[in-house]
Amino acid sequence: MWQFEGCDYLLSRLQMDSAPQSKAHGSSFAHRGELQRAKRIVVKLGSAVVTRGDECGLALGRLASIVEQVAMLQSQGREMLIVTSGAVAFGKQRLKHEILLSQSVRQALHSGNTQLKDMSVPVLEARACAAAGQSGLMALYEAMFSQYSTCTAQVLVTNLDFHDDEKRQNLNSTLQELLRMNIVPIINTNDAVVPPPEPDSDLQGVISIKDNDSLAARLAVEMKANLLIALSDVEGLYNSPPGTDDAKLVDIFYPGDQQSITYGTKSRVGIGGMEAKVKAALWALRGGTSVVIANGTNPKVTGHVITDIVEGKKVGTFFSEIKPAGPSVEEQAEMARNSGRTLASLHPDQRSEIVCHLAEMLTERKEEILAANKMDMEVAVSAGHLPSAMLKRLSLTSAKLNSLAVGLRQVAVAAQDSVGRVLRRTRVAHGLELEQITVPIGVFLVIFEARPDCLPQLSALAIASGNALLLKGGKEAANTNSVLHRLIQEALFVHGVQEAVQMVSTREEVADLCRLDKMIDLIIPRGSSQLVRDIQRAAKGIPVLGHSEGICHVYVDADASIDKVLKIVRDSKCDYPAACNSMETLLIHRSILRTPLFDQIIDMLRNERVKIHAGPQLISYLTFSPSEVTSLRTEYGDLQCCLEVVDSMQEAVDHIHKYGSSHTDVIITENKETAEQFLQQLDSACVFWNASSRFADGYRFGLGAEVGISTARIHVRGPVGLEGLLTTKWVLRGDGHTAADFSEHGDMKYVHENLPVGQTLAEQRNSS
Amino acid sequence: MWQFEGCDYLLSRLQMDSAPQSKAHGSSFAHRGELQRAKRIVVKLGSAVVTRGDECGLALGRLASIVEQVAMLQSQGREMLIVTSGAVAFGKQRLKHEILLSQSVRQALHSGNTQLKDMSVPVLEARACAAAGQSGLMALYEAMFSQYSTCTAQVLVTNLDFHDDEKRQNLNSTLQELLRMNIVPIINTNDAVVPPPEPDSDLQGVISIKDNDSLAARLAVEMKANLLIALSDVEGLYNSPPGTDDAKLVDIFYPGDQQSITYGTKSRVGIGGMEAKVKAALWALRGGTSVVIANGTNPKVTGHVITDIVEGKKVGTFFSEIKPAGPSVEEQAEMARNSGRTLASLHPDQRSEIVCHLAEMLTERKEEILAANKMDMEVAVSAGHLPSAMLKRLSLTSAKLNSLAVGLRQVAVAAQDSVGRVLRRTRVAHGLELEQITVPIGVFLVIFEARPDCLPQLSALAIASGNALLLKGGKEAANTNSVLHRLIQEALFVHGVQEAVQMVSTREEVADLCRLDKMIDLIIPRGSSQLVRDIQRAAKGIPVLGHSEGICHVYVDADASIDKVLKIVRDSKCDYPAACNSMETLLIHRSILRTPLFDQIIDMLRNERVKIHAGPQLISYLTFSPSEVTSLRTEYGDLQCCLEVVDSMQEAVDHIHKYGSSHTDVIITENKETAEQFLQQLDSACVFWNASSRFADGYRFGLGAEVGISTARIHVRGPVGLEGLLTTKWVLRGDGHTAADFSEHGDMKYVHENLPVGQTLAEQRNSS
Repeated sequence: MWQFEGCDYLLSRLQMDSAPQSKAHGSSFAHRGELQRAKRIVVKLGSAVVTRGDECGLALGRLASIVEQVAMLQSQGREMLIVTSGAVAFGKQRLKHEILLSQSVRQALHSGNTQLKDMSVPVLEARACAAAGQSGLMALYEAMFSQYSTCTAQVLVTNLDFHDDEKRQNLNSTLQELLRMNIVPIINTNDAVVPPPEPDSDLQGVISIKDNDSLAARLAVEMKANLLIALSDVEGLYNSPPGTDDAKLVDIFYPGDQQSITYGTKSRVGIGGMEAKVKAALWALRGGTSVVIANGTNPKVTGHVITDIVEGKKVGTFFSEIKPAGPSVEEQAEMARNSGRTLASLHPDQRSEIVCHLAEMLTERKEEILAANKMDMEVAVSAGHLPSAMLKRLSLTSAKLNSLAVGLRQVAVAAQDSVGRVLRRTRVAHGLELEQITVPIGVFLVIFEARPDCLPQLSALAIASGNALLLKGGKEAANTNSVLHRLIQEALFVHGVQEAVQMVSTREEVADLCRLDKMIDLIIPRGSSQLVRDIQRAAKGIPVLGHSEGICHVYVDADASIDKVLKIVRDSKCDYPAACNSMETLLIHRSILRTPLFDQIIDMLRNERVKIHAGPQLISYLTFSPSEVTSLRTEYGDLQCCLEVVDSMQEAVDHIHKYGSSHTDVIITENKETAEQFLQQLDSACVFWNASSRFADGYRFGLGAEVGISTARIHVRGPVGLEGLLTTKWVLRGDGHTAADFSEHGDMKYVHENLPVGQTLAEQRNSS
Repeated sequence: MWQFEGCDYLLSRLQMDSAPQSKAHGSSFAHRGELQRAKRIVVKLGSAVVTRGDECGLALGRLASIVEQVAMLQSQGREMLIVTSGAVAFGKQRLKHEILLSQSVRQALHSGNTQLKDMSVPVLEARACAAAGQSGLMALYEAMFSQYSTCTAQVLVTNLDFHDDEKRQNLNSTLQELLRMNIVPIINTNDAVVPPPEPDSDLQGVISIKDNDSLAARLAVEMKANLLIALSDVEGLYNSPPGTDDAKLVDIFYPGDQQSITYGTKSRVGIGGMEAKVKAALWALRGGTSVVIANGTNPKVTGHVITDIVEGKKVGTFFSEIKPAGPSVEEQAEMARNSGRTLASLHPDQRSEIVCHLAEMLTERKEEILAANKMDMEVAVSAGHLPSAMLKRLSLTSAKLNSLAVGLRQVAVAAQDSVGRVLRRTRVAHGLELEQITVPIGVFLVIFEARPDCLPQLSALAIASGNALLLKGGKEAANTNSVLHRLIQEALFVHGVQEAVQMVSTREEVADLCRLDKMIDLIIPRGSSQLVRDIQRAAKGIPVLGHSEGICHVYVDADASIDKVLKIVRDSKCDYPAACNSMETLLIHRSILRTPLFDQIIDMLRNERVKIHAGPQLISYLTFSPSEVTSLRTEYGDLQCCLEVVDSMQEAVDHIHKYGSSHTDVIITENKETAEQFLQQLDSACVFWNASSRFADGYRFGLGAEVGISTARIHVRGPVGLEGLLTTKWVLRGDGHTAADFSEHGDMKYVHENLPVGQTLAEQRNSS
């Protein structure tokens, strides 16, 4: 008599009559990226998803969002099936009202007194609620789906139906027919005819949940679905009971790993809890259906949980039969942090040695690198989707490798005086000495597009500053990056820290990486402003180094020298118009307007084919002028610029404060006082006098190399070299000192004597 | 014939027959905070809110969320009315399907050919759609509200109904009766009987919108509603057309300011656009109903837009008849930034002078300050809701003011060598010189609870470092803060920068302030860890200085001296248990476990009444042990601590890395080598050897004062004094240098010669 057994019996049965359907519809997907190919998808909605928790009314907003996502996936040509709970909740809400009403009428009839206090909603029998709610629930689904012109069909089943071959085949062909007609079948257990649950206070109102996990798994396999998405109120599977110190959400679960999971106590409502869910999921997986268990109630992800899963994003726990080679990105971050700590504790000379070794390999192993790069170039050219500028950046040459090696050797020198430098020494009191020393920041995530030369450069800076790295390159440079990374590991291996620089699989989504706030201390994007903006938006709680805009200004003062103006303006705009440090707005003093200099500037820009957009002030002064700018806050990034007139140096400063991006701004003048005022007043990271904006660059500043240019006001600003990758820690050495010793009644006094710190690390080592 | 006139006529009529209802139900609310008192609320849903845009199906998720919010407000005892669009969209979706079906049948009957390509949905007449959709829309509202046990009623009206006194009174009494019965009236225009719109392609599908703004205003005044919330797809009212460089959302709009608004072009759909909405809003306002115009379609705020408005949050544009005294917080931030720039350009001596002057006033004007503080204390005591620890912090004494003044004088000295210090000088090439100099960060927002002594301290640090400040103190210290702020302004006035430190009104919501990312560069919370965590969560894109947790460890090594252990452990835990730098976990080396030292430690902690929680390792070693910790990551903040055993110094380091918060960690040992390993390996901001964790403090470190302790890895770490409030900028002085000069074909070479920078600012001044 199966119906009197618990859920576990059912599951063990499911496992007994296993090896089901012999994967007739092909095997499940190996990794999340493949989920995009899922054609037939079963979405299982647990009662926690469909209802508003204890109140048991329906969670309408969530349902609407789910309907929207299902309709969207359906419109992409996928076949969608829904297994839903919720009829009980709907019915309960409906019956509660009815019963209160009839009770009060009965009371009024039977007694004169109005003891309405006693009137309470009786415990409603769940199956009765289900029967009362079923029609309303379906009507709601239908009304919602009809807003997307999608038809639905109601299908009520019991697990028993799967045991009878004829019934099962009938169900199968009915569902096939519905899917053929683009109808979304909405499946629920026929609660009215299933046996009542065993007495258990937990069960009230959620009678059907215990069957829905296994029902959904059964159905998914029966219908040869590619994917089963099981939504409830848990994030997924944890390696320890959620809430304990070590609990981590399992991203991908392999059947072989089952032993490493500790199941938590059963969930608040329903039977089975996570263990039953996992068993059902494993059964479906063996049947050839991929499974994702995820939270459908979290307001942050509700909007997109289903489509996110289908798009391969890291949501919930993904069940896979094939364990992918190599560690997960979380494991990589962990390895990087540990190995990075060892790297940080090496002697500066050893870090320097690693970077030198890497520099050597860039030239010695040139052929290997260039061969890999050639492969990437060939793929990119034949695919034909990369713009030519991108192709140029992707390509490595012998010359590029040579100059990279030169840069790396500079970094190696700088590495000898970076980590562990004493910035401040204070004798706090007798026997109590305080030091502030430089230390690495920790673990960086570097995200770079198309430019494989970023890889050794950033790795060298990270190694020199004792930081660990996760590198995420683009697919287009996969071969080159792979070779370069191998060389870096070889260099690191010399001192046993080869795990400090990890290459993240190209499969990993950038947005998923940007959420690893417990594991990553700083994100460094190297690429277009769009990439930087996307990452700034995606980074939850992790600082992002860099700038999203480079709206640089050149101000031509009344006292400017003609020669310098033409030279600097041409260089600032035309030397490399796509660079972030190239000029976007040219501000000229009004007194220049009707002079030959003005014409010379315009002629020069015309000769260089720079398209001019006029600012509102300029337009008001000219009879005929170029077309007006759409916004004074535009980064053109090519041979275009805005030209505007200001009345004074002060107005130029105000204009730049209002419309600039605090990157780099230039004044051209022969008047020292005006220049110093400009340099003093402007807030920007780089302010230049009589020099091209193009000098805003780590190499040109003499920093050796840079990881980027920052416009932040917190942390580093301007070109960021080695020093920007360090933070500090305070080291206090005492002899049993306590704060109480220094209180009113204590016997110690603060001295706070500054001690000398002028020595470099090298000098410190020599003198000790 | 009013019905053939445009919307403007209607509005001008509304304005003509103005002075309506003579504010019989009291005047509108003066500021957003009062909106919480709104008893009767009309929520107007524009068609952009109810529909999914161009597709014209209903936006079910948004509707569900709106229903939830309305039901929630209703359950608080408010009377809610909804004015809705959407019938047309609902009908269109329904009719489209029907028409396609009947067309295909007709085609199949009339012709043999199957030119289904020609089959397209004809342009549907909006009023027909409305009629077809009305019932479905109402059924949907009803089904949704029934999930919250809320009854609804359908009311169809036309603007004409308001012109006939009898009809108007009938409508009025019907609605009053519905509200009396706790029913939510859902009001729509009776589109089937209104005249067709003038031919205009914009109007398709949105026939009813033009009337709904004025209808909602009419209805709100007629029903003496306290608040009208008008939701559409615009954020609110802008001072310039949205999308232009200067456009800013108007937070509060006063009728008198109408001239300062430039209306944008009409909105994408519907007639009237913003101007019509504003006219309707002003009409309602004159009738005594407060109005908020807001975006009901933005996914980020959809969840809560209605309840947020009722709770007084800054959403959309609030219409008020009473212009509050003083500037808005946005204006204050603007003033602070401008005045801050002047402050930053002062001579260091001048900033120092301001701080000195403030220090003097703290003692000279003592009576004034203490009198105000006495008022705050009396209010707090009589209200009786402040815990005694909080009362102690709120109270100022003559002694406290004296020691504050001492601290400020130290800051004044440090101010002479802060802003404008040269950190690095490089000769880039002949005639091209680069400097990296310290500059202020910009504008800080300081949020502090109960402690009025924070105000002068933080202000002094900000002034000394040339930064501007927005101060947001708690209501409980309002009088004290007000006096202290006046003194600060007096001090700033000496050099004309009195606007650099602004006091934000206690009415402003912290969450609203945390969203001013364009105006604030750094948030400094001073208060409980809860406050810090709340602010870290609320701060959108603005860095927050500080730490949310201080889980500090003391590790007792095998080679520790008994005396030092007892002294340091007692001080670290008991000197001030609520402080963030007090010990939370005591780690002891296993070899100590069965020695007299172990017993002495336990006895000492017992004598000090410290409650001990045992770690899992300790439990495994003892026969009887204290109760097990719930988490090894707990900040107790009082006389409790966790006690755990480790096998080695290395295991202690691993434990701290895993469970610590990188605040302050201590080793007690006589073994120098072990100590140095510990100091080197640990990642924390402060690492101490044989000294109490309580030394982690700006004053004790000799920094003069601190704005807080930071555990960030980016920017400053540990106690943050003056230097942590500075950033840098790069100043390059050239003579017409261009990047091209340094290219392969150029005639210049990089020199990158480091120049000396050893001088302090004072020395620089003396030598120049």
